[in-house]
Amino acid sequence: MEELEWQTYYKLLQKIASNQAIVGIVGVGYVGEALAKATSGAGFATVGFDIDNQKVDKINDENKKNLEATSDINKLKLCDAIAICLPTPLDQKKKPDLRVLKNVTLKLSKILKKGQLVVLESSVAPGTTRNIILPILKRSKLEISRDFFLGFSPERINPGNQKFNLKNTPKVVAGYDDYALKLTRTFYQKFVQDVVVASSLEVAEMTKVLENTFRLINISLINELASFTQKIGIDIWEVISAASTKPYGFMPHYPGPGVGGECIPVLPYYLLNESAKQKVKLNIVKAAAKVNELQPQKVAKAATNIINGRSNPKALIVGVAYKPEISDIRHSPALKIWKDLEDYGITVSYHDPYVPHFNGSKSANLTTRMLKEQDLIIITTNHKKINYIPLIKSNKPLLDTRNALSGNKHKNIIRI
Amino acid sequence: MEELEWQTYYKLLQKIASNQAIVGIVGVGYVGEALAKATSGAGFATVGFDIDNQKVDKINDENKKNLEATSDINKLKLCDAIAICLPTPLDQKKKPDLRVLKNVTLKLSKILKKGQLVVLESSVAPGTTRNIILPILKRSKLEISRDFFLGFSPERINPGNQKFNLKNTPKVVAGYDDYALKLTRTFYQKFVQDVVVASSLEVAEMTKVLENTFRLINISLINELASFTQKIGIDIWEVISAASTKPYGFMPHYPGPGVGGECIPVLPYYLLNESAKQKVKLNIVKAAAKVNELQPQKVAKAATNIINGRSNPKALIVGVAYKPEISDIRHSPALKIWKDLEDYGITVSYHDPYVPHFNGSKSANLTTRMLKEQDLIIITTNHKKINYIPLIKSNKPLLDTRNALSGNKHKNIIRI
Repeated sequence: MEELEWQTYYKLLQKIASNQAIVGIVGVGYVGEALAKATSGAGFATVGFDIDNQKVDKINDENKKNLEATSDINKLKLCDAIAICLPTPLDQKKKPDLRVLKNVTLKLSKILKKGQLVVLESSVAPGTTRNIILPILKRSKLEISRDFFLGFSPERINPGNQKFNLKNTPKVVAGYDDYALKLTRTFYQKFVQDVVVASSLEVAEMTKVLENTFRLINISLINELASFTQKIGIDIWEVISAASTKPYGFMPHYPGPGVGGECIPVLPYYLLNESAKQKVKLNIVKAAAKVNELQPQKVAKAATNIINGRSNPKALIVGVAYKPEISDIRHSPALKIWKDLEDYGITVSYHDPYVPHFNGSKSANLTTRMLKEQDLIIITTNHKKINYIPLIKSNKPLLDTRNALSGNKHKNIIRI
Repeated sequence: MEELEWQTYYKLLQKIASNQAIVGIVGVGYVGEALAKATSGAGFATVGFDIDNQKVDKINDENKKNLEATSDINKLKLCDAIAICLPTPLDQKKKPDLRVLKNVTLKLSKILKKGQLVVLESSVAPGTTRNIILPILKRSKLEISRDFFLGFSPERINPGNQKFNLKNTPKVVAGYDDYALKLTRTFYQKFVQDVVVASSLEVAEMTKVLENTFRLINISLINELASFTQKIGIDIWEVISAASTKPYGFMPHYPGPGVGGECIPVLPYYLLNESAKQKVKLNIVKAAAKVNELQPQKVAKAATNIINGRSNPKALIVGVAYKPEISDIRHSPALKIWKDLEDYGITVSYHDPYVPHFNGSKSANLTTRMLKEQDLIIITTNHKKINYIPLIKSNKPLLDTRNALSGNKHKNIIRI
C-alpha cells in the first residue's frame, strides 16, 4: 500500500476501533435487525436500510438510541462499515436466486465511497463474495484494497434459540486481503465475544454451507430411517433417545414434517448448484435434499390414509411456523402439507398462537365445536404455547409429526 | 408364569444379583474379551469360549482371577448367563454373513439348559435376536421365558478410546420379555455405571445401527464435500475447524482414506439389506456407503497422479491399522489402497509401529535409505507414535490423508 491508501485504511480502522464508525445494514430482516441492534448497542451510529417499509417502521417505532432505519439507500453514503444481510432464496427450479443481492449491491456500488468497508453476511455458495459481489462493487470505479475493503462473515442467527445469540455465538470472519480481514475482525470484536478468522472468503462461505448441510443430511437421515422403523413397528424417537446415551460419536436429530426456514432447506441447493458447475457429484447431499423435499408429501399421504373414505373431510393443521416458539413461516412444510391435503379434497384450517394469518386463513381457536368438526388433526410444529389437551380430548385422529405429545399414550395419537 | 417357572427365574436373578452366577462369553475378540474382563472383575466366575486358540491362550496367559478361556464349548454348560459376542461380517457381495453367529448359536442350543440367560451383543439388523437367534435356541426343546431367557445389548466398545470404556459408557439393554429384561439389566448393572432400558429387542438392535449409520453418513459427507473443496482450492480441514466453533447444531467429522473396523463400514449394510427386504429405500445411507467404498480408490488415484510417468515406481504406506493408536487392521482402507497401487504397477511397502506384519510384508523401518527409494509416501493412519520427521525431511511427495501433519507447510506435503 502506498502512503495515501495506508491513510484511508488506517483512518477507517481507527473509526471502527474507537466505535466512531457509522454502520450501515443493508436488509433488516431477522439477520440484519439482530446485527443492527448489536452494532447500535455497541455504540456505533447505525442506519438500517430496507425496501420493506414495515421492517423500517418496526425498527423506528422501537426508537432505539443510535439506530434508525430507512428505505432510502442514499443514507448509506455516510457509513463507514456496511454489512449486507439480504436474503438469498431459491427460485422455482431450486436454483440460487441472487437477484435481490445483485440488484441492491449494484445500487450500493453507485453510492460507494472511498474508505468504506463492505461485509457480506448473506448465505452464499463459496466464491460468491469474490466473483459476484466484488465485480459489482468495482463498477463504482473505486479500487478494492485501495479505496474500499471487502469482507465476508456468515450469519449464525438461530431464531428461537434462548441460549445462543449474536453476542455469544462465535463469528467467522474473512477478508479479501489482510487489511479487509483486520477491519472486519475489529468490527465484529466490538459486539461478538469470539471472532474466528478464516484464511479466505471462500473458507468462510463454505463454513456456513457445511453447517447447514450437516443439519439437512442428519435430519433427512432420521426421516429416511423413520420410514424403515415405522415399517418394522418400532419407535424412531425411542431409538434416538437410546442412541443419545452414547457419550461420544453421536448427536441426536429428530424426524418431522420437513425442514423449513431460510438456511437448511436453501443453502444445500446453493452447494449443489455450485458443485454441478465444478463437475463434482454430491450424491449424499442430493439424496438428503430429496428426502426433505418429499417429507411433507409423506405426511399428507399418511393423513389421507387416515381420512380415507370420509365425505367432505376436514383437517386441522396445528403449528405452521417452521419451528417451535417463532412466527417465521418461510419454507414451512405446513404450507406444502396444506396444499397436498387440498389436492386430496380435504378442507384445511389451522391453529398457531404465533401466526395469526396463514395461507389466506386466520388461526382458528381450539374450541370443542371446531375440533368436533375435524376428521384429523396434524401437529406440524410443537410450540410450547399450544394447549394440547383439547386436541387429545377431542378423540380425533391426531397425527403427531413432532413427538409433541411424547409419552402420552392416548389412543387417538398417531406418530409418524 | 407358573410357580415352578417363577422359581427358575427367581433363582437365576438371585445368582446374578449376588454375583454368584457363572458367566459364559461366546467369542473373546475385542468385544468379548473386554466383557469377560469386566464380568470377572465384578466377581463373576467367567468362562470365555473361542475357536481361535490364540485368543484363548492370550486370556489364559494373563492368568486373571475368576477368568479362564477355552476352545471347548461344552464348558459353557455350567454357565448361568451367556453373552454372545461373535463377529457379524459381510460377505463378498456386502451381504450380512451370519454363518458364524448361526453355527455357534446352534452349538450353544445343544448345551442350553434350564435356568440360563442368553444375551446377544453382536451388531445385527433389527429383528435378528427374535427371528434368527431365538428359533435356533428353541431347537434345544427348552422353552423361552419358562426355561431360558433372551436379551440383547449392543456393544459400544471403542478401541483406542482412552476416556470411555465398558464401565463408563452407558449400555442399552432389552429383553424378550420383562423377565429377560430384568435379568439382563441386573447383569450389566454389576459392571456398567449406566444401564439404559429399551422397550424391545428391535429398539436396542436399531440403536446400534443408528449410531454406526450416523458415523458413516457424516464421515462420508465430509469425504464427499472434500472432493468439492479440493476442486475450488480450499482446505476442508480449515472449514471443519471453523464450523466447529458453532456451539450448537454441529459436530465435526473428518475426511480420510475411508472408514475401517467391524462396525461403521459393516452395520449400514445390514440395515440396507433389511430395509430392502422391507421394501423401504434408504437412498442417503446407500449414497454414503458408496462414497466410503470408493474412498480408497480416490486416494490411490491421487497417488498415481503424483507418481505418473516414473519407471518402477515405489510407494510407502504409513499407518495400516484402521484408526490411530490401535493394531486392528480389519476393513482397513490401507489394504484396498495397497491393492489399487499394485494394480497400477507400483511396488508398495508399509510402516506401522502397531502392525508388525501386513499383507504378506513386514513393517519397514523409516531409514533415510529406504525413504530415498520411494517415489511417494501416503499417510493412511495418523498414529501418534510414528516419527513423521524423516518423512517430511525425505522431500518425497507426502500424501497426507489424515491431516497428520496439520499446520506443517513443508512443500512436499499434499493434503487430500
